[in-house]
Amino acid sequence: MINLIEQQVDKEPILHQVSKMKDFLLNHVNQKIVFLTSGGTSVPLEQNTVRSIENFSSGLRGSASAEYFLKEGFVVIYYYRDKCLRPFARHLNVQKLINADQQELEKLNQLQQIDKTKLYEISYISVMEYLYFVIKAMEIFKELKLNLLVYLASAVSDYYIPKDMMAQHKIQAQDKLELELMPVPKILGLIREIYKEAIIISFKLETDDDILYKKISESMKKYNLEYCIGNLLQNRRDQIVIYNKGEFIKIQRNKDEIEEQIIEYFTQNIK
Amino acid sequence: MINLIEQQVDKEPILHQVSKMKDFLLNHVNQKIVFLTSGGTSVPLEQNTVRSIENFSSGLRGSASAEYFLKEGFVVIYYYRDKCLRPFARHLNVQKLINADQQELEKLNQLQQIDKTKLYEISYISVMEYLYFVIKAMEIFKELKLNLLVYLASAVSDYYIPKDMMAQHKIQAQDKLELELMPVPKILGLIREIYKEAIIISFKLETDDDILYKKISESMKKYNLEYCIGNLLQNRRDQIVIYNKGEFIKIQRNKDEIEEQIIEYFTQNIK
Repeated sequence: MINLIEQQVDKEPILHQVSKMKDFLLNHVNQKIVFLTSGGTSVPLEQNTVRSIENFSSGLRGSASAEYFLKEGFVVIYYYRDKCLRPFARHLNVQKLINADQQELEKLNQLQQIDKTKLYEISYISVMEYLYFVIKAMEIFKELKLNLLVYLASAVSDYYIPKDMMAQHKIQAQDKLELELMPVPKILGLIREIYKEAIIISFKLETDDDILYKKISESMKKYNLEYCIGNLLQNRRDQIVIYNKGEFIKIQRNKDEIEEQIIEYFTQNIK
Repeated sequence: MINLIEQQVDKEPILHQVSKMKDFLLNHVNQKIVFLTSGGTSVPLEQNTVRSIENFSSGLRGSASAEYFLKEGFVVIYYYRDKCLRPFARHLNVQKLINADQQELEKLNQLQQIDKTKLYEISYISVMEYLYFVIKAMEIFKELKLNLLVYLASAVSDYYIPKDMMAQHKIQAQDKLELELMPVPKILGLIREIYKEAIIISFKLETDDDILYKKISESMKKYNLEYCIGNLLQNRRDQIVIYNKGEFIKIQRNKDEIEEQIIEYFTQNIK
């Protein structure tokens, strides 16, 4: 599987990101650490990319969760889709700032006071770049024997177009366009294998309740995982389920953000 | 054509946007006005949207052009893809702001001083929403007999999936995914027809030089248009060609932003 992924990416810049992250981690090896992915992934349709298939995700789940993990004393590696929401910055409305809105300027002032030294941010764009980074990062986490939570909130594409099936130039207009996409390799099993001591929390987003429960149970057994957070697109800000060892725990939002309750659950249930 | 587009959108909110824009324009009827579109368009693959096909565009061309039009005294209707770059706001780096970077705070202060009363902004997401708004807006422009430039810098999708061919729920994983897309209706001819007195400047982005020139010439003749700006993805910040009446004028960047030269060209050549 790793070979297939390697063939689809430019390895050099990704390995450089991994090595810079390692330098950061070397100063935090004995702390609680969460590796948190956030935002959608992109599947280019052409080599000189003009068009792509995107998985929808604002990055709100990930960026909010990152803040609550920081509050709980975690070191946070925030691996996010370029341009999606980021911790703290997500609260600002730039339009209001340039219109000199006093409340917004006050908010900016408060955000400036927050200690961000335990937050390390790295960005990605394409799904293959994402997969390759996550695998290489897991190898580093194992090497450093980190006390690690892996929190996979990114919305990862299920299909992609292999490089050798992509058009070289912009696809030209014609009567209709037919695209054939191949399934994206599932890396959950692989990352579980790379670092068995890590606690892995995956996410599942669906639009249909029945499918959601079924898919979570299947995927947890298949990859031998402990935790999965399930949510429906239509009410994902107000309700989630946490799967653990065959059981589903429903959480209904009763705070400003449901992410605060999610992180509370994990800090209480994971030692 | 308008019927086909109407079937694909929720008309009510778009007509509301058009009517609010009209209210704004009623205070500016005797001024030079530019209707400027900016950013990519989105093609949903599912009804409960999780996935979409996107046309790449940061909105830099459009947002920079908007600023230079404002500088030249134009009233600017900025019709932009939600989350793409916007005039003035584009200059700010939120990350630097929350890290209390002094230069960035100084920049914010300068941006706050700028008069933005001649700028009116409206956002869109999907390609069908875009097409419907543009047509309805042109009808208003004609009704108000505006002295109008139409500057179509948005990167509009060439293909879409009609609603009745879309999946109701998230497409489930399978061996491979085959998508069939239909061509997006071309509205250049229609908007030319709706308001003959407007000056229309369209854009063409390609990745291959030969194709670019050929496609501009064809499209200008077909829709009976005067101006088109051509650019190649790989050097679009440094070089463009302006097509006018069968001739191509090359512009090489010699200022901070080539958009300043583009707007200079039009303010000098269009009376």
